Amino acid sequence: MTSTDAATEGHEAVALLDRTRTTVQPELRSTVESLPDSIRRVAMYHFGWEHADGTPASGRAGKAIRPALVLASARALGGEPLHAVRAAVAVELAHNFTLLHDDVIDEDPTRRHRATAWTVFGTPAAIIAGDAMMALALRLLAEDPHPASGAASARLAACVIELCAGQQADCAFEQRAPDEVSLDECVAMAMAKTGALLGSSCALGALYAGADDEEIAAMDAFGREAGLAFQLIDDLIGIWGDPDTTGKPAGADLAAHKKSLPVVAALASGTPAAEELAELYRSPMDGAAIRRAADAVERAGGRDWAQVQAADRMARAVQQLSRAVPDLTAAGDLLALAEFVTRRTR
Amino acid sequence: MTSTDAATEGHEAVALLDRTRTTVQPELRSTVESLPDSIRRVAMYHFGWEHADGTPASGRAGKAIRPALVLASARALGGEPLHAVRAAVAVELAHNFTLLHDDVIDEDPTRRHRATAWTVFGTPAAIIAGDAMMALALRLLAEDPHPASGAASARLAACVIELCAGQQADCAFEQRAPDEVSLDECVAMAMAKTGALLGSSCALGALYAGADDEEIAAMDAFGREAGLAFQLIDDLIGIWGDPDTTGKPAGADLAAHKKSLPVVAALASGTPAAEELAELYRSPMDGAAIRRAADAVERAGGRDWAQVQAADRMARAVQQLSRAVPDLTAAGDLLALAEFVTRRTR
Repeated sequence: MTSTDAATEGHEAVALLDRTRTTVQPELRSTVESLPDSIRRVAMYHFGWEHADGTPASGRAGKAIRPALVLASARALGGEPLHAVRAAVAVELAHNFTLLHDDVIDEDPTRRHRATAWTVFGTPAAIIAGDAMMALALRLLAEDPHPASGAASARLAACVIELCAGQQADCAFEQRAPDEVSLDECVAMAMAKTGALLGSSCALGALYAGADDEEIAAMDAFGREAGLAFQLIDDLIGIWGDPDTTGKPAGADLAAHKKSLPVVAALASGTPAAEELAELYRSPMDGAAIRRAADAVERAGGRDWAQVQAADRMARAVQQLSRAVPDLTAAGDLLALAEFVTRRTR
Repeated sequence: MTSTDAATEGHEAVALLDRTRTTVQPELRSTVESLPDSIRRVAMYHFGWEHADGTPASGRAGKAIRPALVLASARALGGEPLHAVRAAVAVELAHNFTLLHDDVIDEDPTRRHRATAWTVFGTPAAIIAGDAMMALALRLLAEDPHPASGAASARLAACVIELCAGQQADCAFEQRAPDEVSLDECVAMAMAKTGALLGSSCALGALYAGADDEEIAAMDAFGREAGLAFQLIDDLIGIWGDPDTTGKPAGADLAAHKKSLPVVAALASGTPAAEELAELYRSPMDGAAIRRAADAVERAGGRDWAQVQAADRMARAVQQLSRAVPDLTAAGDLLALAEFVTRRTR
C-alpha cells in the first residue's frame, strides 16, 4: 500500500467513526439518561456530556471504535447496520463500565484529558456507576426485540467475564516481579482485556446480520486479532505517546511499573538492556529514570517486537475476516477501522 | 396465629430453605466454578466453599431466601420449581454481587462470621469478582433455553440498576447530616436496595411459571413489601442483634453512623431522645455511647415504629400475594418464608 492510500484510508476511518457517533450517540445518550438520577450524573460526566456540576459539556465520548465495529460487521455480513444500533450501544456501555472500574482499580487520575469519575465523585459512586452501566448494557440487549438479542446478550455477558479475567490478570501482574511474568501470559491477558470486547463487537454485528455460527466465530477472531494489534499500539503509546494527544503524562505506563507488552518483551530479551530495565522497575522512577527505561525497552527490542507483532496480528485478523467475508471488498469499513487503530502512532 | 403455629411455620421455613439449598446449590456451585481461575478463588471464598488458601471449607453460602422465593413463586403460580432453578441461581448470584461490592464500598471487615473478600484478596479482586458474578447471573439467564429467560434477563438487569440506585442513595445518606435525611427517602432507599431483588425473585418465579403480566406485577409487589419488612428487621438486628448470631459487633450500624430506618424514624420523632441521638451521631462513638444511642432510638420510638412498619408491610405483602394467588393455601411456602424473615429477632 502506498502512503497516499494509507492517508486516504485513515481519513475513511475517521469519517466512519464520525458517522458511527452520529448514528449511535442519540440512542447511547438516551439510554444513559434513563439511569436513576444519582447514577446518571456520574455517567453523564464520565461520557463527557456534563461537567462535574451537572452543566452541559461538549466533550467527546471516546472514539466509538467498538460501536463502529458492530455496525460495520453487520453491514459486511449483509445486514442492515441500523438494526444493530442497540448492540452497538450495548458494547459501548460495556466498554465504559470497564473504564470506570479500571480507573478505580488502577487509581488513574485522568481519562480523556479530564479528571476520572472516582476522583470527582468518589470511589463508591464510580464503582456503582460502572455496575449500573454493565447492567444497562445487558438490559438493553435483553429488551431488544431483534431475534438475535438473546444470543447477543449471552455473548456479551460471557465477554464481560473474560474482560474481568483480563483485568484480574493485569492486577496480579502488577504484584509480581518483572521477571515473573511471561510474554505468553501477557499476551493472553491482553487478549482477554482488549481482544475479547473487540471480538464480541464484531460477533454481535454478525449475529444481528443473521450470520451462521462459523461466520460469527470468524468475525470474533477477526476482532480479537485486531484488538491485540490495537493493544500493542496502545502499549507503545503508553510509553512513547505524546502527552498532548494521550492526555496522560509521558511514559505513564513506565511510571506505574506497568508490565505492558513491549516492556515484558524487552524484559524477556536476555539483553543487557533487559537487566537495566528490570533494575529500573525495582524502584520508583523520576522523569530521567522514565526516559532511561523507555530507552532500555527500545534497545532491548521491545519497541520493534511490538510493532512487528501488531503487523502480524493484523495479518491474522484479515485472514479471519476473509473466512467470514470472502469478497473483502464488502468489508472495506472493517479493514479501514482495523488499519486505523494500528496506525495511530505513526 | 398462636405461638405454636408460629413455631411450626418457622420450622417449615427453615426446612424449606434447607431444601432450596439442596436443590439450588449444585447448579450454583458449578456455575461459580465455571468462572476463570483467578476470579473463581475469590468467589469460592466469598460463598464459604473455600478458605483463603483455596482448601475446601464447609461454610454455608447464606440463607438462600431469594432462591427459595423464586422456587416457591414458581410453584404457587402452578409452575414446576425445578424448571426455575437457573433463575434461582441467577438471583443468588446477583445478590452476592451486591454483597461483594457493598462490603468494598462500606469497608465492612466481616460477613457471615468471616473476613470479607476485599480484606483477604484486596479491593481490586473483590470489585472484579463482583463484576464477574453479576455478568454470570445475566449470562446464566440469557443462555437458559426456557421461554421466559429473555424476559427474566431483562427484569434482573433492570433490578440490578435499581439495586445500584439504592446503594448509591445509601452512600449519599452517609455523607449528609442526620436531620437532612427524611424517612420517606430512607424507605425509598430500602425499597430499592432490598425490596427490588426480593420482588424480582418472586417475579422471576412467576415468569418461569408462565404467569401473566398482572400476576407477575403482583408477585413483584409481594416480594417488595416482604423485602421492606425484611430490611426493617435487619435494621433492628443491626442495632439490637446478638453479635454471636449476626457475626457483627453489637450496634455495628450505630457505630458506623448508619442512617437505618429505626434511626431515621427516631431522629424524625421530635422528641428529646431524637436530639440526644442526633448529638451522638455528630461524633465517633465508643461502646458506652453506642449503648446510649441504642437506648435513644428506643425512647424516641424508632424501635416500635420499625416493628409496627414491618408488620404493616407484611400485611400489604399478603394482600399483593392474594392478587396473584387468590387461594392462599397454594402459597403456603411463600407465606412461611415471608413470616420467617420478619420473625428472626423474636
